[in-house]
Amino acid sequence: MKIAVVGLGLIGGSMALVLKQKGFATKVYGVDNQEAHTQKALELGIADEITDLNTAVAKADLVILSAPVSVCTVLLPQILDQVKHQIVLDTGSTKTSLLDAVKGHPHRGRYIATHPMWGTEFSGPEAATNDAFHGRANVICNAAESDKDALATVEKLYTLLGMYNVYMEGKDHDVHVAYVSHISHITSFALANTVLEKEKEENAIFELASAGFESTVRLAKSSPAMWMPIFKQNKENVLDVLNEHITQLRKFKSCIEKENWAYLTELMENANKIKHVLDREE
Amino acid sequence: MKIAVVGLGLIGGSMALVLKQKGFATKVYGVDNQEAHTQKALELGIADEITDLNTAVAKADLVILSAPVSVCTVLLPQILDQVKHQIVLDTGSTKTSLLDAVKGHPHRGRYIATHPMWGTEFSGPEAATNDAFHGRANVICNAAESDKDALATVEKLYTLLGMYNVYMEGKDHDVHVAYVSHISHITSFALANTVLEKEKEENAIFELASAGFESTVRLAKSSPAMWMPIFKQNKENVLDVLNEHITQLRKFKSCIEKENWAYLTELMENANKIKHVLDREE
Repeated sequence: MKIAVVGLGLIGGSMALVLKQKGFATKVYGVDNQEAHTQKALELGIADEITDLNTAVAKADLVILSAPVSVCTVLLPQILDQVKHQIVLDTGSTKTSLLDAVKGHPHRGRYIATHPMWGTEFSGPEAATNDAFHGRANVICNAAESDKDALATVEKLYTLLGMYNVYMEGKDHDVHVAYVSHISHITSFALANTVLEKEKEENAIFELASAGFESTVRLAKSSPAMWMPIFKQNKENVLDVLNEHITQLRKFKSCIEKENWAYLTELMENANKIKHVLDREE
Repeated sequence: MKIAVVGLGLIGGSMALVLKQKGFATKVYGVDNQEAHTQKALELGIADEITDLNTAVAKADLVILSAPVSVCTVLLPQILDQVKHQIVLDTGSTKTSLLDAVKGHPHRGRYIATHPMWGTEFSGPEAATNDAFHGRANVICNAAESDKDALATVEKLYTLLGMYNVYMEGKDHDVHVAYVSHISHITSFALANTVLEKEKEENAIFELASAGFESTVRLAKSSPAMWMPIFKQNKENVLDVLNEHITQLRKFKSCIEKENWAYLTELMENANKIKHVLDREE
């Protein structure tokens, strides 16, 4: 199958690599507005040919839209305008804006809204890897609005990546990811700023930073160009969770201030329940 | 060298395993007030013999105090009361309380205050591993208050564990670890509570939780019995950092509320600077 990858970053790049390796993609047309990305994608064997968007869509059987979500919202209707038999999927971290942008489009059926729950803190084609996606969930949103043949092909694609498909409405997806992904990024960004702000002696950070610190702050390396549009599109849900998170932090603060060690212990014991969630995941 | 390990958990247990493997420890006397721990430590070859505290101190050349910090503060003066030639070190995550507890003790010189910057979210002797400590910093506090021979032995011990020794005053240590360790645990506990509080459909957490979420919430599995005394002993520093962290989170909140996307991007770009700190560490 001929594939167009629009946005040659971590997700699109990794998808191209794995789909080529599995024999699903016989040719990959790469589209990206950054020349550094297209050059690198050719070098790394992610794309076989670099074209403009219209050419890629015309030549491909399947279009993977893996640009920042703000760009996807603009490009998706344009792509659907040109689509005939082709299948279009996106991999964005927010779904409502995108679904709204193509609601009622005459070719809406050719589009499948997906969100593979995999990523790293790195970005760009050089971050793309064969060792991606496996064992994680892929969310398919509003599946009933997609044509059955297109849906079946996309389900097969994700199964081939080693993912399992989960189905929900876009609105529910956007609430859930605010909890299990977006808030993690905000806390990590804010934690990095906390340490960078207060700690003047950088050597002390460097020498004492433990694996625990690295783990909680890892996502602070993530790309602002990717994350700003996500927080923008998922504003209301992100604010809800952020408010709740600040409330939870204030409980810890209040316990420590008031030396209420019994309640502090209770708060930590409650947090320990996350074990069950994470263990089920493994 | 005969070693007493007081507190047969993750740190004491791992230390015993590695020191035996390296031939530094010829015999390990294990002390723990939990029978489940002593049984397990014998089974796993962490301890060769279980004794009471006084016996272990009398028989050992070196005492490793690796109990929760609240317990260490009580036991350390008692241990120093009995010490003649022996060396005593502790591995606690806070140092000021402990240093204060033995200030001016006639045998103060036999004690070295240390903090190996390694750990996992797991606890108990079953969490102990040979694959511990390597490549991380060990902090030695108020080294000038320790006898030179005792200090030299402890420096050698940590070098043998693959760690590099860093020297500072206990007071500075407690400030630094509030930034690079204690706050990470609080944000992780609070993040777990945020998700557990709001997310009613646990299956959605389970299915959508990505590696990023797992990374930021991992420390929420940590032992409240270990962490409550740390937050208690390091109360003022932890509150300072926690206040700063809440301030940083409020900046993110304010940007999103006011749709100030330029400033939000700036906040994230600033957080990206943590790359340099983490990269120097690798």
